[in-house]
Amino acid sequence: MFTIIGERINATRSSIMDAVEKRDSETIRQEAIRQTEAGADYLDVNSGSRPGQIGQDMAWLIEVVQEAVATPLCLDSPDPAVLEEAYQQVKAKPLINSISLESNRFQPLLSFLKGKDCSIIALCLDDQGLPKTAPEIIDRAGALIEGLEGIGFDRARIHLDPLIQPVAVDVNAGLNAVWAIQGILKKYPGVHITCGLSNISFGLPLRRSINRILLPILMTAGLDGAILDPLDGKIMSILTISKMILGQDRFCRQYTQAARAGVISL
Amino acid sequence: MFTIIGERINATRSSIMDAVEKRDSETIRQEAIRQTEAGADYLDVNSGSRPGQIGQDMAWLIEVVQEAVATPLCLDSPDPAVLEEAYQQVKAKPLINSISLESNRFQPLLSFLKGKDCSIIALCLDDQGLPKTAPEIIDRAGALIEGLEGIGFDRARIHLDPLIQPVAVDVNAGLNAVWAIQGILKKYPGVHITCGLSNISFGLPLRRSINRILLPILMTAGLDGAILDPLDGKIMSILTISKMILGQDRFCRQYTQAARAGVISL
Repeated sequence: MFTIIGERINATRSSIMDAVEKRDSETIRQEAIRQTEAGADYLDVNSGSRPGQIGQDMAWLIEVVQEAVATPLCLDSPDPAVLEEAYQQVKAKPLINSISLESNRFQPLLSFLKGKDCSIIALCLDDQGLPKTAPEIIDRAGALIEGLEGIGFDRARIHLDPLIQPVAVDVNAGLNAVWAIQGILKKYPGVHITCGLSNISFGLPLRRSINRILLPILMTAGLDGAILDPLDGKIMSILTISKMILGQDRFCRQYTQAARAGVISL
Repeated sequence: MFTIIGERINATRSSIMDAVEKRDSETIRQEAIRQTEAGADYLDVNSGSRPGQIGQDMAWLIEVVQEAVATPLCLDSPDPAVLEEAYQQVKAKPLINSISLESNRFQPLLSFLKGKDCSIIALCLDDQGLPKTAPEIIDRAGALIEGLEGIGFDRARIHLDPLIQPVAVDVNAGLNAVWAIQGILKKYPGVHITCGLSNISFGLPLRRSINRILLPILMTAGLDGAILDPLDGKIMSILTISKMILGQDRFCRQYTQAARAGVISL
C-alpha cells in the first residue's frame, strides 16, 4: 500500500494563496474533489504564512475541504500551535505534517501527539540543519522513532521523510536517499517512508522529468508514500507501473484497469 | 559507466529480416549509424534463423555494419558455431551474446572463449530452464562466473543477465530481479549486470511504458547495462535522468547537455 498525499492545496502556490485571500471556496473545493478522484489518500492543507492570519486561513481551508470530500487531511504547518488548533477541527484521522528534531518543534509536537489518534510525518532534520550523508539521515530517523515510540506512538503511524537534497548541489543526493531509506527500513522495519519529489531537481531544467524518475528509484529502496500532484498523469502512471513491477499489484489488476481506462501516459 | 547495447539489428524484427533477405545494405547501414549516433556502446547483430543461411546472413550483416560504423558489435546467436565464425570477422573487441549453463552451450562457449579478447553476456539459465526465485538466479550467476573465471576470463568482462520474467505470469518477477541483482553484486563485486527490458511486460497492454520504468528500478539495484532501442527518446531520457539521480553524472553535465539539446522527453 502506497500513501499518496495530494500536494495541491498549499498556499505557497499563488493560485491557492489567491483563493485563500479571496475566500474563494470553489477553487479549493475543486482541488479537493479532483485530487480525491485521482486517488489521493490524504490531502495536504497548508495555509501559507500571512502574518496573523495563518490559523484563520487554516481553519477556513479545512472547513471548505471537509465540506467537499471525506478524504483525510494532511495538516501542514511548521508551527505546532497551528497544527494543534487544526487537529481539533478534523473529522477523519489526519496525518500531521510535521515533526522534526528541531528544538522548537520536537518537544511541543511530542506533548501534543501523546494520546492523539493520527499519523505523523517526521523530518530527518535537527538544529544542525539538513543531514548530508545516509548515516546522518538514519541517525536522525532513529532519534525521531525513539522519541515518538517513547510517548506510545507506534511505528506504523510514523512516515519518515529523509529530506532529499538537490542533485545539482550534491552528486550523491539521490544515492544518499536510496541508502538512507534502505538503512532505515533494515534498522526499523514497519516504519513508513515518504518524501516530496521536487527538491531533487532544484536548479536544473525540465524539473518534472527528474522528479518523476525519482519515484521508481526511491520505491525500489522502500519508499511507500509521497507528497505529489495526483493530477499529474505521468507521475500517477509511473506510480501504477512501479507498484506492479515491485510486486504490489496482484494479477496486474490496477495497471490493466488504468491502461483500459486510458490513463496510462508515459 | 552504463553499457548501452543497441537492439535494433535483429532479424527477428521483420524489417531487418526483410533487409537480410534482400541484401538491402542501406537499411542496415542506417540502423547502425543512427544507433551509434544515439549513444550505443555496442550494436547487437542477430541474423535470425533462416535454415542453412544463419552463418552467411551473419557474415553479411557484420560486413555491412562494420563498413558503416566503428562501434563494437554484440554478436548474438544461440549457436556457438555461429558465434565462433562471427568472432573471426570483427574489427573491434566484441561482446558475445551469449553463454548459459545449458549443456549445448556452456562447454562449447568456454572452449571458444579461452584466450579470446572479448566480453560475454552470461544468461542465468541451465538445462532445468528459467530460474524462478532470486536465490536460483544468484546460484546460476555463481556457476557462470566460476566457469568463466576458471578459463581465465576476468569478472570485469562478464555481463550477467538475470533473465527477467513477465510480471503478468509471476507477481514477484520484478522483485526477484531486484533481489537477484543486489545479491549477485554483493557476492561477486565487479561483475556487470545487463538485461533486456521487454520481457517484463509480456501479455500486458502499453508494454513500452512498463519497459521504460523497469530501467530505473533495476539501475537502483545495480544494473549497469541493457539491451535496448537507443532511438527510443523516452528510454534514453530515463537512462540519462536515472544515471544523474544515482550519482553517475558529475555536475549533472550529461543531463544538462541533453536538456539543452532538447532530447529529454518524458
